[in-house]
Amino acid sequence: MELEEIIETVSNLIENKKIKDLREFLENINSADFPSILENADEDKTIMIYRLLSKEKAAEVFVELEHDDQERLINCLTDTEIKNVMNEIYMDDAVDLIEEMPSNVVKRILANTNATNRKVINELLNYPDDTAGTLMTTEFIDLKENMTVDEAFKFIRRKGLKTETVYNCYVVTIDRKLLGIVDIKDLLVAERNELIKDIMDTNVVKVNTLDDQEDVTKMFDKYNYVALPVVDKENRLVGIITIDDAIDVIQEETLEDFEKMAAITPDDGDTYLKTSVFKHAKSRIIWLLILMISAMLTGEVIENFEAAISTLPLLVAFIPMIMDTGGNCGSQTSTLIIRGLAMEELSTKDIFRAIWKEIRVAIIVGIVLAIANSIRIMLQYNDLKIAIVVGITLICTVIMAKLLGCILPMVAKKLKLDPAIMAAPLITTIVDTLSVLVFFNIATFVFHI
Amino acid sequence: MELEEIIETVSNLIENKKIKDLREFLENINSADFPSILENADEDKTIMIYRLLSKEKAAEVFVELEHDDQERLINCLTDTEIKNVMNEIYMDDAVDLIEEMPSNVVKRILANTNATNRKVINELLNYPDDTAGTLMTTEFIDLKENMTVDEAFKFIRRKGLKTETVYNCYVVTIDRKLLGIVDIKDLLVAERNELIKDIMDTNVVKVNTLDDQEDVTKMFDKYNYVALPVVDKENRLVGIITIDDAIDVIQEETLEDFEKMAAITPDDGDTYLKTSVFKHAKSRIIWLLILMISAMLTGEVIENFEAAISTLPLLVAFIPMIMDTGGNCGSQTSTLIIRGLAMEELSTKDIFRAIWKEIRVAIIVGIVLAIANSIRIMLQYNDLKIAIVVGITLICTVIMAKLLGCILPMVAKKLKLDPAIMAAPLITTIVDTLSVLVFFNIATFVFHI
Repeated sequence: MELEEIIETVSNLIENKKIKDLREFLENINSADFPSILENADEDKTIMIYRLLSKEKAAEVFVELEHDDQERLINCLTDTEIKNVMNEIYMDDAVDLIEEMPSNVVKRILANTNATNRKVINELLNYPDDTAGTLMTTEFIDLKENMTVDEAFKFIRRKGLKTETVYNCYVVTIDRKLLGIVDIKDLLVAERNELIKDIMDTNVVKVNTLDDQEDVTKMFDKYNYVALPVVDKENRLVGIITIDDAIDVIQEETLEDFEKMAAITPDDGDTYLKTSVFKHAKSRIIWLLILMISAMLTGEVIENFEAAISTLPLLVAFIPMIMDTGGNCGSQTSTLIIRGLAMEELSTKDIFRAIWKEIRVAIIVGIVLAIANSIRIMLQYNDLKIAIVVGITLICTVIMAKLLGCILPMVAKKLKLDPAIMAAPLITTIVDTLSVLVFFNIATFVFHI
Repeated sequence: MELEEIIETVSNLIENKKIKDLREFLENINSADFPSILENADEDKTIMIYRLLSKEKAAEVFVELEHDDQERLINCLTDTEIKNVMNEIYMDDAVDLIEEMPSNVVKRILANTNATNRKVINELLNYPDDTAGTLMTTEFIDLKENMTVDEAFKFIRRKGLKTETVYNCYVVTIDRKLLGIVDIKDLLVAERNELIKDIMDTNVVKVNTLDDQEDVTKMFDKYNYVALPVVDKENRLVGIITIDDAIDVIQEETLEDFEKMAAITPDDGDTYLKTSVFKHAKSRIIWLLILMISAMLTGEVIENFEAAISTLPLLVAFIPMIMDTGGNCGSQTSTLIIRGLAMEELSTKDIFRAIWKEIRVAIIVGIVLAIANSIRIMLQYNDLKIAIVVGITLICTVIMAKLLGCILPMVAKKLKLDPAIMAAPLITTIVDTLSVLVFFNIATFVFHI
């Protein structure tokens, strides 16, 4: 059923007071569709719809909501209802919730969480930001190596509903050291009396609690797993990260890269419309100021050639075209290099191969642009000297732009800085100054001014 | 074990001719690590290592290799070896392979593929590019609604090793219409004699063979599934898409967005270093030419104010700063809007809310920049009139840049064009012309020139 139909059916059922039908209907709706359904209902109806759900469904739906909707909902729920939610949701979602809520709401949530869960939540909250520890959940299937396949099935059956995934099961010793991993498929095709230790894969790909979340997403990308085990320093299994959380991190980190490359200081993960005007301004102003001040340097260069400009004011008309072309060339190269580094298709030791490639690309591109420009100048001004000056400047600008676009992100990476700061805006500013310098030097030389 | 250790162990074992140990060692290495291992070996050793692998492992490893390594390997393999690979790999991987190989290699691959698989491959190859049909695989678990849980387990046991995933099982009628979905977890916790139709979820999230692959990835993101069923027009189940393929598409589409936003025409998915110089030049030149020609318009505007420039050459020194600031402001806004649209956090009906937000952000940012600039001008030139002219121009430029950065991508989306073409480069060029126009008009007015 399409989302629009669902929303219409819900509002029809409410209007006609068919509460029993509505309850049945809601139970069959995918939890991920609820944010859209509730968005279209007013507060009274939201809480009514929510209260019609079964305990399990209510918790599932709660996790799917946006943070501000969660906050509004919690303020309407009774203590018992909050208790139900906290008993049902997975620990990684509980931690997410607590990190995002204001302190008075957090107090109420924790007051309605049982002692065991509260302890787990506190432990998870202690991991540094953006590490595997903050992404993981603590509910998973932990088998013992001496179990038979049959015993393992019984264990999963008992514990399955309380774990986030049964797709991968983990084999641990009594002191929780990670021994191996069993995919549910291997378990299903094995003989009933085989021992877990004979079917488990001991070559486990795992991450450490303190590993950076970006490295964790790369492991998912490389190894195509649906979950990764997380171990502490002593190789004790403390949690698992599921692929849905990894995808969320990929999306977040990609957005951050887009922002950094557009000279925006990344901020927490709020959507565009939910971020306040002041926050938007704050995250944009710093780079604009830095770049504005750097751009003044280009102005200083131009000032030094005031005499040339007075003699031949036409020269000024070519500045925007030269600046923009340099900027665009630099941004093309830096984007490719920054992405290549981020995706690990490129490493800093490839720098000379990349430089050599960019030089050849720049020569081809520069010559084509210079020819196009010369034709236009000859048609419009019929002035060969200007055509030559602009043509040579263009070729030099393209080469400089492509070289800087290639070298600066690589150097940043080597210096353990984020290559994304060497993106289009900064490179544009640098290329501007250089290209204007080249332009006026060639011009004064050719025209003897 | 770390990748470096693995590579060292492999080359040690080869050197000491411990072939039996090597075979055993390789069998325990994750297939995803083989590309790196083989990259470090020469051709003879590559084929030797490959031939040591078991049939299943060999196929797994083959799928992980880069396309040019696959081609090189195929050219070394015997027909029987190719047959083994084609019998073992999943159909989506077979299709990928055939799409990427040159025609002589394809001929040899198809000659060594059995008739049934060849038929499936041909069907899959017929789906239009970038649709769900090209992403799906045809090996999955299809249960019947009247099976008991116990019968289902027996069925999975028999068929499990030949399917890409057992995490989700699908329930179909005799004529293959999709009835429901059973997560393996539900199967594991159910009673042995329960019927599949009583535990299946009939509210199935599915995609159509002709759905765009980008929409498919959004379904994965929203619903957190590890696989999605693909149906044809008659709701017959024809395949499934697994999450690892969805992640690959997300990465590809993200790279394309980065490229488009940096004025690069996206190209097939080769890595930076593997793309030829000529291809790099080709994918960059078109936009550079378009933007260069547009930038000439800014030049024309400046030419019209030649008189003003002759009178007050200092004016020219502010052009780069105004142009760059306008470009950066436009690029900030357009990046946020384009990403918001791509992630569906924004829709075209939010245009007025976005405009209103951008106007307020622009006023704050514009005023801060104008103040910073005025202070500098007063210190350097002690010329209030210039400070006023540049300040007002900056505020106008920021507002124009942010408005265009917001409106143009939204309009492009509304016109069913790709919003990414309205990214930084194009907006910069437009804002350049407008800001220079504003600057000289204000200047001639204030200085009466």
